[in-house]
Formats: sequence, structure tokens, C-alpha cells
Amino acid sequence: MFLVDCAEGAQLLLRRTHCRFANISVIFISHLHGDHCLGLVGLISSLGLMGRTATLHVYAHGSFQDLFQQMMKFFCPNLSFVVSFHPIDTTAAKVIYEDKSVSVSTIPLEHRVPCCGFLFKEKEGMPHIRRDMLDFYKIPKCYIAGIKEGAGWVKDDGEVIPHERLVTPPDPVRTYAYCSDTRYIPNLHELLKGVNLLYHESTYDETCLHLAEKYYHSTAAQAAKVAKDAGVKHLLLGHYSARYSDEEVLKKEAETIFPNVTLANEGLIVDVV
Amino acid sequence: MFLVDCAEGAQLLLRRTHCRFANISVIFISHLHGDHCLGLVGLISSLGLMGRTATLHVYAHGSFQDLFQQMMKFFCPNLSFVVSFHPIDTTAAKVIYEDKSVSVSTIPLEHRVPCCGFLFKEKEGMPHIRRDMLDFYKIPKCYIAGIKEGAGWVKDDGEVIPHERLVTPPDPVRTYAYCSDTRYIPNLHELLKGVNLLYHESTYDETCLHLAEKYYHSTAAQAAKVAKDAGVKHLLLGHYSARYSDEEVLKKEAETIFPNVTLANEGLIVDVV
Repeated sequence: MFLVDCAEGAQLLLRRTHCRFANISVIFISHLHGDHCLGLVGLISSLGLMGRTATLHVYAHGSFQDLFQQMMKFFCPNLSFVVSFHPIDTTAAKVIYEDKSVSVSTIPLEHRVPCCGFLFKEKEGMPHIRRDMLDFYKIPKCYIAGIKEGAGWVKDDGEVIPHERLVTPPDPVRTYAYCSDTRYIPNLHELLKGVNLLYHESTYDETCLHLAEKYYHSTAAQAAKVAKDAGVKHLLLGHYSARYSDEEVLKKEAETIFPNVTLANEGLIVDVV
Repeated sequence: MFLVDCAEGAQLLLRRTHCRFANISVIFISHLHGDHCLGLVGLISSLGLMGRTATLHVYAHGSFQDLFQQMMKFFCPNLSFVVSFHPIDTTAAKVIYEDKSVSVSTIPLEHRVPCCGFLFKEKEGMPHIRRDMLDFYKIPKCYIAGIKEGAGWVKDDGEVIPHERLVTPPDPVRTYAYCSDTRYIPNLHELLKGVNLLYHESTYDETCLHLAEKYYHSTAAQAAKVAKDAGVKHLLLGHYSARYSDEEVLKKEAETIFPNVTLANEGLIVDVV
């Protein structure tokens, strides 16, 4: 389980959503403004009180490392688990994390401080065994793993049934890109080609374009333009200015450019499909 | 306006209660566990975004000063106001703050880290002018301020009307004592004689006395004992262990020892009378 950014109060929200946040193994911090990382120490402290033993990995800009470690020492002096800090280069698009099922890459963004997004990319899974072929050729179950790995099947009469006839392709890999906070980057879409789900900040609407430019944020229209240019499947908006009592105005603005838009809000659950 | 302790999410709660927290002038931190101070930087950062210019005073144990200042520099680099840090000695009962209407003293407590409570004591106000005496002696209004300050009145015939006949005594001063976190201190009541309102932590009930002793916390019965021995008017309980889904058990336990008990909870407003 991954957590991306950790604002003040994140642990309270995680509790409220009944999310099993003890299972978080990696936290990625996009940038070091308080509203994206001030909940980190509190969350880690609570994980300690819950008796965690597994190492927790934190990825953030290297400028935070020294202060973070001092804060950990001060507020979490007898932690029951290791917190491993991984400094990241926010200016390059490269893989920073990998496990057997997913890789995570940085997405360079442009904000008032060093900032990057994160691209989560599922690894290609195994092909699916064709049940009908197993039955037809009477292939024993103990061969399934080998066939999934790429083997064919040799019949008793010596005839070889090629691998491709025994399987259907693996599920398509799914991707999720998180982009916050950033001003509009015209060529950002090149890093986001065809992602299933794109979270892109939309602090303002177009009437506040001057503020978006001043504070290095984006408008809903700009977020939608990135989504359209990248050909993503689904756009998730978020990080709204407090001026909007109803964020529907942002959704409507985005929908004039890109059709499949959802407003992110506390507790929302979105499938990556 | 004063704030005592500042847990993670304090600014969110302050917003929710529609309290005008921009008016906070002093923050007192009892001790440096995360659940009492991790909301400090976020709150200060938000005060900055709200355009504050008045100096904010923060009182806390000196061991926090260096880290606090580093956190301020990192998370609030261009703050529009000054944050003045005042290191406090948590082992002595002495006045640490004073203005024209109130003084604040430390109350040494016993917790796992240096910790103190705070005693807020109103200053004695002016005596009240007796309207009937003003009318009777035909005293012009411009003399009221002088009489409040202690002057008498000299009649045209030279007779002196003493100050005491012209006024009624000022309102009795009100006091509020905040004691969290602490193990039971048998002589704590000596510092709390007759306070109007005592907040005393009650993490546990008596069946968990061993935990209270182990973790340097108090039971509801112990809090009530302090209230009774000090002869306070009103006891406010708080800081409950998460094991209590209904804290009435703590209230009931305290009420067997001290009659006027209230359970503190989010958003509760209590008059100091």
C-alpha cells in the first residue's frame, strides 16, 4: 500500500476512512510545502504506537532529509521500526521504486519549490491459461506454472503445441499518474501517454489564470488539456482553492476539453481501470 | 486569545468551530509529545497565509527551540509576522506571562518528558462606581476614572467622602488551571487552591491504575482527588485513552469523589465562573 503526500491530519482521515493504513509500506512526497508533508511525523508516530515492525520507506526531496531525521529523533525517539529516507531528484523522469508488481517513476513538475509527480505502472502479469486447451490436451495441473512462464506442450505423439495456443494474453497493465502541485506544462503529456487515471491539480478556474501563473498552479482547463493531449482514460481533479464553495465549476470547465472528469474529495475511492 | 497545546489538526478543528483563531496571541505548549505540539507549524503557516502581522508568542520547553526554529525556517520561510519563542522551565511554579488583564504561571507536572500545566489568573479589576453616590454628591463624570483608581471626593464644604463609600468591590478574579499530561501528584492541589475551573487529564479509570502509573498518566479518580483537595469549583476531564468508547465511566468515577465534573470533548465551550 502506497501513500502519496501526507498533509497535516492525514492519519485522522485515514482512520476515518477505515483504511488499513498500518499496511502502508512506502510514502511518496511530491514537494515540501506543509500541506503535502506536515502529517508525516504524526502518522509515523501513530504507526509506532500500533506496534509496527516493518521498515517504512519515505521518498522526498533531499533537502528534507536532515530536518526530517531531526524531527523523527525528537518526536519518535523509540520507534519500533526503521524509517528509511530516500532522497529523490525531482527534475528527472526516472524509476525510483520497484517491486514485483509495480514500478514508480518521478514526473518533473514546476512549482515554487522542487516538485515532482509520481507515475505508478503495474508490471505485466502472467498470461492466462486457456482452460479449454488444458482439458483438450489433458495437460496435468503441475505444468500450468511452466506454461504461464512461456512453455509449450509436447503431446505423447511428439507433436508440439505452441505456448501461444495454450494461453490468452495477460491483463493490460494499468497506470496511475499523480501530478500536484504544478503550473501548466505544455509537454507534460509526453510522460503520461495513455495512463488509466491521471490526478492533476486544478487549483483555479480560467478566470483566475493570472493567479495560477503567479503561484505556479493550474486551472481546470489546463489540467484537462494535459489529460486530452496525453490521451488518458480518466481525469481526477483536486487541490482546489478555498474560494470555490462548489467545485462543480472546475469540473464543468474541464469537461469542455476532456470528457471523463471526476472531482477528488475526501474519502473518494477510484478504481484504476 | 490563548491556545494551550496544539496537536496535529488543531487548525482544522479551530476552523470547524468558527473560532476566530487569527486572534490567538500566545500559544502555551505543556510538553513536547506529538499529540500536544505537532499542529504548531501548520497553524502558524496558515496564520501567515491569512496575512497576520502581529507577533505570535510560543511558550514551550527549551529543548524544542532549535528544532522549532529549523521547522519554521523550512516550512514558513517568508512569514509575514514574527514568531517569538519563549523557553520555559517546567520544574518551577512561576509567572511566565503577564498582560494587563491576566497572568499565566507554570504548574510543574510529572510525565515521561518535561511537562507543565498552566494557571491562568485574571488580574483584579477596578472597583465599581456606585451610581447612587455619584448622583447624591453630584460628582461630575470626569472624576470617575480617578475614583476607580482609589481617590475619594471632596465636597464644596471641604468634607471628604472616602473612596470606599463611593465604590463596590471589583469582581472576584477568575482562574483556570490546565493540567495535562501527568501522573497523580499528591500535593498538586496546593498550586490549585480554589480555582474556578480545573482541567485535569484522566486517561484511565481506576481499573487501569497500573497503566496510569506505567505511562505517567492519571485516572479519573485521581483527577477528582486533586479537584477535591484543591477545592476547585468545576472539574473538566479530558485526554481519554482510546479504549473508552463511552467516557461516561470516567465521569461517573470522578463524581464519586468530586461533584461538579464535565467531560471535555471537541468543540466544547466552558465558561470560567
